[in-house]
Amino acid sequence: MLTISNRGQQMPPSPIRKLVPYAEAAKKKGIKVYHLNIGQPDIETPKQCLDAVRHSDFKVLEYSHSAGNESYRKKLVQYYKKVGINVTPEQIIITTGGSEAILFGFMACMDAGDEVIIPEPFYANYNGFAVQAGVKVVPITSNIETGFALPPIEDFEKVITPKTKAIVICNPNNPTGYLYSAAEMELLKRIIIKHNLYLFADEAYREFCYSDVHTSAMHLTGVDEHIVLMDTISKRYSACGGRIGAFVTKNQTLLNAAMKFAKARLSPPSFAQILGEAAVDLPDNYFDTTKAEYKLRRDTIVTRLNSMPGVFCPNPGGAFYAMAKLPIDDSDKFCQWLLEDFNYNQQTVMLAPATGFYGTKGLGKQEVRLAYVLNTTSIHAAMDCLEKALEVYPGRV
Amino acid sequence: MLTISNRGQQMPPSPIRKLVPYAEAAKKKGIKVYHLNIGQPDIETPKQCLDAVRHSDFKVLEYSHSAGNESYRKKLVQYYKKVGINVTPEQIIITTGGSEAILFGFMACMDAGDEVIIPEPFYANYNGFAVQAGVKVVPITSNIETGFALPPIEDFEKVITPKTKAIVICNPNNPTGYLYSAAEMELLKRIIIKHNLYLFADEAYREFCYSDVHTSAMHLTGVDEHIVLMDTISKRYSACGGRIGAFVTKNQTLLNAAMKFAKARLSPPSFAQILGEAAVDLPDNYFDTTKAEYKLRRDTIVTRLNSMPGVFCPNPGGAFYAMAKLPIDDSDKFCQWLLEDFNYNQQTVMLAPATGFYGTKGLGKQEVRLAYVLNTTSIHAAMDCLEKALEVYPGRV
Repeated sequence: MLTISNRGQQMPPSPIRKLVPYAEAAKKKGIKVYHLNIGQPDIETPKQCLDAVRHSDFKVLEYSHSAGNESYRKKLVQYYKKVGINVTPEQIIITTGGSEAILFGFMACMDAGDEVIIPEPFYANYNGFAVQAGVKVVPITSNIETGFALPPIEDFEKVITPKTKAIVICNPNNPTGYLYSAAEMELLKRIIIKHNLYLFADEAYREFCYSDVHTSAMHLTGVDEHIVLMDTISKRYSACGGRIGAFVTKNQTLLNAAMKFAKARLSPPSFAQILGEAAVDLPDNYFDTTKAEYKLRRDTIVTRLNSMPGVFCPNPGGAFYAMAKLPIDDSDKFCQWLLEDFNYNQQTVMLAPATGFYGTKGLGKQEVRLAYVLNTTSIHAAMDCLEKALEVYPGRV
Repeated sequence: MLTISNRGQQMPPSPIRKLVPYAEAAKKKGIKVYHLNIGQPDIETPKQCLDAVRHSDFKVLEYSHSAGNESYRKKLVQYYKKVGINVTPEQIIITTGGSEAILFGFMACMDAGDEVIIPEPFYANYNGFAVQAGVKVVPITSNIETGFALPPIEDFEKVITPKTKAIVICNPNNPTGYLYSAAEMELLKRIIIKHNLYLFADEAYREFCYSDVHTSAMHLTGVDEHIVLMDTISKRYSACGGRIGAFVTKNQTLLNAAMKFAKARLSPPSFAQILGEAAVDLPDNYFDTTKAEYKLRRDTIVTRLNSMPGVFCPNPGGAFYAMAKLPIDDSDKFCQWLLEDFNYNQQTVMLAPATGFYGTKGLGKQEVRLAYVLNTTSIHAAMDCLEKALEVYPGRV
């Protein structure tokens, strides 16, 4: 028999998308499903960005430069400058979504058997890219009681081996919404210097910080060679389908290596580079409205959650996710039950079980991730469903 | 010191793009460079496809389905039917260019240390994807004397080991332009059955066949489980920058595995899926004009090449590439010299040295690849340059 590869077998299913068949079945039964399971914002993509694509007038849809259009990279330099990051166009490789930036980073820095440390719970697709690169993800646990703050530095020290090549930090965090402080970033700086590690910084949600200013890994001084920014415009401008991200580093050797991966796949998508370039010209106050809207939604969802008996939801400092601890036996069972066996006035809610965000087996069984990507009316309706559901769920503990 | 990975070091530079700095330097000196080095067609992208994108009216640029929009996959079923391939929408995964389809195929079917057989000269980026997957490319040599026909089946048998998992065939071929016959495809069928191998079929140039009809790997009967189509719209509709391809197979287990890789990167680019969907509605005679244009260019370039003393260029049956044997010492040196030290009336030509397309070291030193992606006037001008260059090149043999 023809076989698929071990890595094909090891690739984890998406914890965000694995319950989709149950949601589809619920919808077929006429039940309205509120999707709080996935980070697809309902915020409109800025019209002037979409218009830039719609008004483009080239005749041939050509390959772009493998690192992305130079004009776009020059614009991005302006954008990064506004957020306190000083880079040159040559230090930026435009990627096909943040996903490809992560893959390039893993591929260029690590070989099969190497290890990368990631505070858990973490963005589940890091697992997928690690499997593709043959890299072992070593999780260290952050806890809901601290709001998912950075684990103590000793926890990092304990798991560092000669195989450890990098730490991944997502800031503000998906799935926890935690915003790492300047002090925490300094702790990370000390450890990457001491153990000579790369720091991969996923800053997809940089613009959405509610409690404090954002400290980019690229704000850290004296560690230029260590830092790789894995960026994307998906959430920043609600442009997830564009598939435009960026791999940014001042490490020239690494940049050269990453460029070889970029050249092998020829170029990033041309249309959405036009969109990304136009986005840099949005007015400086563009994010104010979006941020205010997300903050309102956060306040709404966190208040509602904490008012439910037995529920605890720390107040997330950024991004558009909240993690909540529920009085349930098993988050996978519960989330499936919400879609399969429950409805409240013909409505229900779809959540992401937290188990898929933990690398340590057995964790996250009482936690769920909620993406507050719907307006407050929908959030209230979804929370009504959740509240009722928790009252009648057979596996309540 | 921070290190990059072995695979980052092993990634080969692009043979098509490595001479770019010399071309840029030539242009700075005021020399006009005819680019026959790269498969970027000058053919206009069909206006109605670009218009489909320009007239789109959605408000949020959302992620698409990880397998691509269902509406597009349904349309593609119609397209494939027209070329004699019967598949369902569920058997198609829309990829980010043909590049990603190749990567998914390598990743899902093979593990580190596994082997894939590819007739050489071959599309150089297969090397890059093989390095990413840790897979060993085992070349078997086809020869310019036979026009790069399929090597004898015994040559395949000789290199098959327990590690061999697949054969890659590019038909019509890049870089040789060779169009594999139905009989040759049947030979491949026999060998994949006998040794239980996958056949990865790169059919990017399916529409551009001049000497014979195209035999798709998906036309082979009784081997559905073995066949993976690695497709793209880049060349078909001159839409290289769209980055839309397809991974197509009837092997359900493989499809499930590939979908996990697709889900990890979330979705293919949204804009160009609209373009691809519109392209299926182009009139049936759409390709006639483009094909006639390419055939004219092929006839022009092949005639010009064979009229030069000491030059031999077999007549390619498809795609838009020709491989020529030149009376030179070293194709890398010669191609660099053309840009660095030569001009004819302030003009020169950029070619791709064939060495980068061979897996066997030392081969291709007298061969170059010419992409006939320019109009016949430019091709004549480029051939004038080449003819003069060969007269004065110091390394002529």
